[in-house]
Amino acid sequence: MGKKLKFLLHINEAIEIMSKNIRIELKEEKLQLIDALHRIASRDIVSELDIPFFDRSYVDGYAVRAEDTYGASESNPIILKIVGSARPFSSELVINQGEAVKVYTGDPLPRGADTVIMLEDVIEDGDKIYVLKSLGKYANVAVRGEDIPRGKVLIKRGNLIKPKHVAALATIGINEVYVYEKIRMCIICTGNEVVELGAGDAKSILKKGLIFNSTGVLITSYLKMLGFAEPIYMGIAGDDKKSITLLLRKALDLCHVIISTGGAGPSEQDLTIEAIEDLNGEIAVRGIAMRPGRPTSAGVLNGKPIFMLSGFPVASLLGLKYFVLPSIEKAIGISIPRKIVVAKLVKRVANAVGYTSFVRVKIYRCGEHLCAEPIALTGSGTISTILDSDGVLTVPPNVEGFDEGQFVEVELV
Amino acid sequence: MGKKLKFLLHINEAIEIMSKNIRIELKEEKLQLIDALHRIASRDIVSELDIPFFDRSYVDGYAVRAEDTYGASESNPIILKIVGSARPFSSELVINQGEAVKVYTGDPLPRGADTVIMLEDVIEDGDKIYVLKSLGKYANVAVRGEDIPRGKVLIKRGNLIKPKHVAALATIGINEVYVYEKIRMCIICTGNEVVELGAGDAKSILKKGLIFNSTGVLITSYLKMLGFAEPIYMGIAGDDKKSITLLLRKALDLCHVIISTGGAGPSEQDLTIEAIEDLNGEIAVRGIAMRPGRPTSAGVLNGKPIFMLSGFPVASLLGLKYFVLPSIEKAIGISIPRKIVVAKLVKRVANAVGYTSFVRVKIYRCGEHLCAEPIALTGSGTISTILDSDGVLTVPPNVEGFDEGQFVEVELV
Repeated sequence: MGKKLKFLLHINEAIEIMSKNIRIELKEEKLQLIDALHRIASRDIVSELDIPFFDRSYVDGYAVRAEDTYGASESNPIILKIVGSARPFSSELVINQGEAVKVYTGDPLPRGADTVIMLEDVIEDGDKIYVLKSLGKYANVAVRGEDIPRGKVLIKRGNLIKPKHVAALATIGINEVYVYEKIRMCIICTGNEVVELGAGDAKSILKKGLIFNSTGVLITSYLKMLGFAEPIYMGIAGDDKKSITLLLRKALDLCHVIISTGGAGPSEQDLTIEAIEDLNGEIAVRGIAMRPGRPTSAGVLNGKPIFMLSGFPVASLLGLKYFVLPSIEKAIGISIPRKIVVAKLVKRVANAVGYTSFVRVKIYRCGEHLCAEPIALTGSGTISTILDSDGVLTVPPNVEGFDEGQFVEVELV
Repeated sequence: MGKKLKFLLHINEAIEIMSKNIRIELKEEKLQLIDALHRIASRDIVSELDIPFFDRSYVDGYAVRAEDTYGASESNPIILKIVGSARPFSSELVINQGEAVKVYTGDPLPRGADTVIMLEDVIEDGDKIYVLKSLGKYANVAVRGEDIPRGKVLIKRGNLIKPKHVAALATIGINEVYVYEKIRMCIICTGNEVVELGAGDAKSILKKGLIFNSTGVLITSYLKMLGFAEPIYMGIAGDDKKSITLLLRKALDLCHVIISTGGAGPSEQDLTIEAIEDLNGEIAVRGIAMRPGRPTSAGVLNGKPIFMLSGFPVASLLGLKYFVLPSIEKAIGISIPRKIVVAKLVKRVANAVGYTSFVRVKIYRCGEHLCAEPIALTGSGTISTILDSDGVLTVPPNVEGFDEGQFVEVELV
């Protein structure tokens, strides 16, 4: 940044401000369950049924009355009469004292039966069995409702739908679910030095002092991967307020959220900021005390958020993960799961107090623990630091650093 | 299983056998970089360029010769002459002794310059600056090639393409990449008691002793999520060898890999096995010493693998994750990253020696560590055990269990 950023906000303050000042109005969509993966549930879903719906055997054997087996042993077998099979299923099937019914894994128990003796604990002999073992009630039985009791919340509004939710919902026969429409996120890249991928021979482009728009590609592909977002790449505006304004207008029509990149140079961000102000938008965050990503800013335009990220790929990705997405999550009341590990630092990590630092680390097993090794950094543009890293360690602003040997939380990426 | 499985294989043996006996022939596809996310690279990609392509400043300031600043301090400022700006870029720009050129973050250094002094360390005064600090060579400079040196492998054949790879490839101007076509995986479900989602009112269906095909939905959605696989759901064959054979024939035409579910009952798997043998396939794995999932089997049909998983959702998912996918990975020589944490067990986990157990655990922070709490189990069908879990702990067959307090590796799910 050409100018000093005197009033840098802490990242949590910036998230708080943005989440309070923006409106992201998402419609509901009804989707087939199988298409709802990685979308965000827009309603709580509660089971109205008990699963298993019946007491079910979870072994192959004989359904019996537990009390009929009391005292049975290999030296004192008890004889029971086979009165039928649980297959095919019949709700009429009943057993009385002294009787047994053949069951296979998963079969509902016939009425009157309260336990299942495994095949290996009986001797089969024509229409009778010798029971070699005494059983308590509900041995080898999955009791009605023990897996999913009626009233169990299977997914909460605002949660990401994962395969395990799909399985649970399918089990109770739910075929359609309500989810939020995808969050449409428009991406506007700025910078005269930035060119589109595929614009020509790489070497001759770089020789001219130009760079490829890796940041735009990274942000777009990261958002695409999330599943619940629909990135709309708007192109490169250059350092030209008119072009930026034009793209901002289009983005306002198309998207719930606008992201611009560029602004690590002297002028680009100012141009974006001027364009926002020209459109009667408000700048809510101008610079965040984060490393990398100090120039990260944000504004509100017609109630919609516009996040201004660094033009450098790594800083922009960290801005997206730790500022943009948390602001959106908080504004809508959704929660995106993150994968966190605890690891032992193998090297001290220093922090400029007042700043939140995002340190890229390698993670590996070391003895009883995982170890985290910070990757040496120079500047915010270094792709290597994410290419070689497994996770991100967040150092909060009130901390001078983490010591070698300290256990820290790392988000896997 | 109605019959005893006398020759259960260890899961690693089963993977070994399958990976050696199957042929999965994947074509290459050329994709736009942005569409290649979560696909598998079919070639190594090596950088042919140095990034940065020039020595670049990573601050705003003045590019100078380090030796011109030697001895400078606040009390002894050194005066340098401003001879230009790095913007717009010109490869002709040169500085000589006593000269400085204005640079912004990211700008290539002019020839002759070997260091950059930050704005806050100078006083600007018309066409000259007062340098207030002595600098070494390459201060605030990203040196040519320091991020991505020429020859660096950016992604290896067989690796999953993640956003970080996309960013790195974009940086060097690569717009198209070679990936493997999606692995087409046909899913055939068996069981007379299994009905399709949406077949009618859930309660009245369950009342008839029927169950919804949650396993088929789970397997299909899990595969879909992977990105590099294309699940093709073939429907429910029932317990009918003709139908199974018909679907197997179709699947052989369509897919690289066939997965069947069902077979925890007495007859379904035998029918699938008979159908495979009727089609001159070979059964390579009949039962695996794993819990849950003992009936898990596999065969080879015209060189293509067919994996027979449990009809229970949890057991089938574990079979997919820990048997099917590793067999495919090994056969093709690809590697799917897994997210592993180390956590302290809060309760002893027992194992039946000879078996590989897959224990679902909850993970939470406890003091300096993560803790893993095993979820109580009954049977392999319990959806709750995955709904409430954060990860899977694998207990190998040569281990009697893990003790309370022991540190164990858990795969996050």
